[in-house]
Amino acid sequence: MRKTIVGVMGAGNLATPTDLDNAYKLGQLIAQNGWILLTGGRKAGVMEATSKGAKIAGGLTVGILPGNNTDNLADDVDIAIVTDLGNARNNINVLSSDVVIACGMGTGTASEVALALKNQKKVILLTENQESKQFFSSLSPENILIANTPEQAIALVKQIILQHSLTTNQ
Amino acid sequence: MRKTIVGVMGAGNLATPTDLDNAYKLGQLIAQNGWILLTGGRKAGVMEATSKGAKIAGGLTVGILPGNNTDNLADDVDIAIVTDLGNARNNINVLSSDVVIACGMGTGTASEVALALKNQKKVILLTENQESKQFFSSLSPENILIANTPEQAIALVKQIILQHSLTTNQ
Amino acid sequence: MRKTIVGVMGAGNLATPTDLDNAYKLGQLIAQNGWILLTGGRKAGVMEATSKGAKIAGGLTVGILPGNNTDNLADDVDIAIVTDLGNARNNINVLSSDVVIACGMGTGTASEVALALKNQKKVILLTENQESKQFFSSLSPENILIANTPEQAIALVKQIILQHSLTTNQ
Amino acid sequence: MRKTIVGVMGAGNLATPTDLDNAYKLGQLIAQNGWILLTGGRKAGVMEATSKGAKIAGGLTVGILPGNNTDNLADDVDIAIVTDLGNARNNINVLSSDVVIACGMGTGTASEVALALKNQKKVILLTENQESKQFFSSLSPENILIANTPEQAIALVKQIILQHSLTTNQ
Repeated sequence: MRKTIVGVMGAGNLATPTDLDNAYKLGQLIAQNGWILLTGGRKAGVMEATSKGAKIAGGLTVGILPGNNTDNLADDVDIAIVTDLGNARNNINVLSSDVVIACGMGTGTASEVALALKNQKKVILLTENQESKQFFSSLSPENILIANTPEQAIALVKQIILQHSLTTNQ
Repeated sequence: MRKTIVGVMGAGNLATPTDLDNAYKLGQLIAQNGWILLTGGRKAGVMEATSKGAKIAGGLTVGILPGNNTDNLADDVDIAIVTDLGNARNNINVLSSDVVIACGMGTGTASEVALALKNQKKVILLTENQESKQFFSSLSPENILIANTPEQAIALVKQIILQHSLTTNQ
Repeated sequence: MRKTIVGVMGAGNLATPTDLDNAYKLGQLIAQNGWILLTGGRKAGVMEATSKGAKIAGGLTVGILPGNNTDNLADDVDIAIVTDLGNARNNINVLSSDVVIACGMGTGTASEVALALKNQKKVILLTENQESKQFFSSLSPENILIANTPEQAIALVKQIILQHSLTTNQ
Repeated sequence: MRKTIVGVMGAGNLATPTDLDNAYKLGQLIAQNGWILLTGGRKAGVMEATSKGAKIAGGLTVGILPGNNTDNLADDVDIAIVTDLGNARNNINVLSSDVVIACGMGTGTASEVALALKNQKKVILLTENQESKQFFSSLSPENILIANTPEQAIALVKQIILQHSLTTNQ
């Protein structure tokens, strides 16, 4: 039976120290809740940090790679999906996630938030970038949620999954 | 020899009357400058209006469709590219455009702006949405340009194409 | 209004001299019939030869590139569609073509023939590769047609387009 | 650390009874060897049968879906990757598999074999379709292997993985 997947999206080399701390913590909490972690798979920034956190906590990790091989895969990814789609793979990242968490902000992450909203997915923003919160909240108020800590983000994930489960089981 | 392509991105059914007027005018001006117009191809909103403007002015129009057939193609598209990629086709829209103009704003358009910036493309914003201007300008100040009218947008396109031509011919 | 597109698929560096001659001739004939030529866009083999033939005859050429820029674009392509999809762009090649001609045979071309058949497209095989004719004819007898010369291939394209036009206008 | 993935490709509704028996057995053997099973994910034919075999044997299953949701997911898929790419997702199926097994033959499966060969992947054919064996063996003799039973296919997978492991650890 299909397992619940939580996607953590975030920058590679441009991730801030706060983003990396949050990513690691998110990975741990996702694993502790028994969910699968999905990321963009690369050995850099948020993708690497959150996968590491999930593995330390005994979780299962999926990485959706943009290239055509696994050369740049983060060490802590269990299941590598090799897309060779470049940034078009960002749409797969969000479509495959039951809930999307944006950890930090950048051009790639912004594309993932926008694609998630386009696909009617709930997105949790965990970022110091104020302009992104104002923009995305105004764009799609019903699907954007704001968290200030990894713990708050995970509490929101739980609510969303519970709500979705109630809706689909009616 | 490859022709210059200008992409006009914008909403379908959620486009505002101002967006539609701007889109039509942009299409005319793009055609009058001898450039090819590229859009998301659907028979709706900005895609339809800007293709109509370009054809009235005798231009050539390309539409990059998300579906697997041409059923929803705008009447004024000459060349339909059928991708069957859903919203992942947004990355093709921006990669294939020498310059990207965002005409209006929505979740799909936001994804195209973000993907264009991720790919180091120049993007011209022509929209009443203030939050989007603040966000994208802060995200990528060197690649975001703001226009208040279609004419201003086209003047910026000319500058970008001239600059790019000077750079690559050095 | 949408123009008719004929796709010519074939190998890059592994194309045989016969394939290249056929590709050039196909390009000429496609242009002379007023159709748009669509190829994989690269500056190599069948893609390059058929685009050259079409331009010599005054046609319009589209190239669907696998990479994320136009560095390897064939000189005679007018409209470059930049996909960054690698070989996944092969599906776009066939979906965007009203009729597909396989000129020669190789692993990439075989994938395009198979994807075209999967999408219920008619495919004309113009190749010395006997095993491919036997296999694809057995796989999808109703959608595979065999040509021995470029002229025969073009005659088949005409029949298919006429038939399709009659069906959809009923 | 990345786990080994074996892809089993095959038809949906057009799968033969022999294909379904082979698919189920392949799934069991893949799970018993500790490998992850990857399929096209749909609730039909080979995809469904092989996922069921793997789960019965306690394995982990991944499904790469063509649509934009999980409505048609096979019951025995643990991890659903939602691509919304239509048949372009076939390229992801083969790129993500360390070894590809074609179980049966059809237009979709043929595209996967061809794409795998294009990407220099080893492909094991387990099919009653003689023309496909002749064609693909002639196209890429170094990367096509023929099996007559699921057990033979799995023995070939072991050889390929061992060989690859020796090569990359040198």
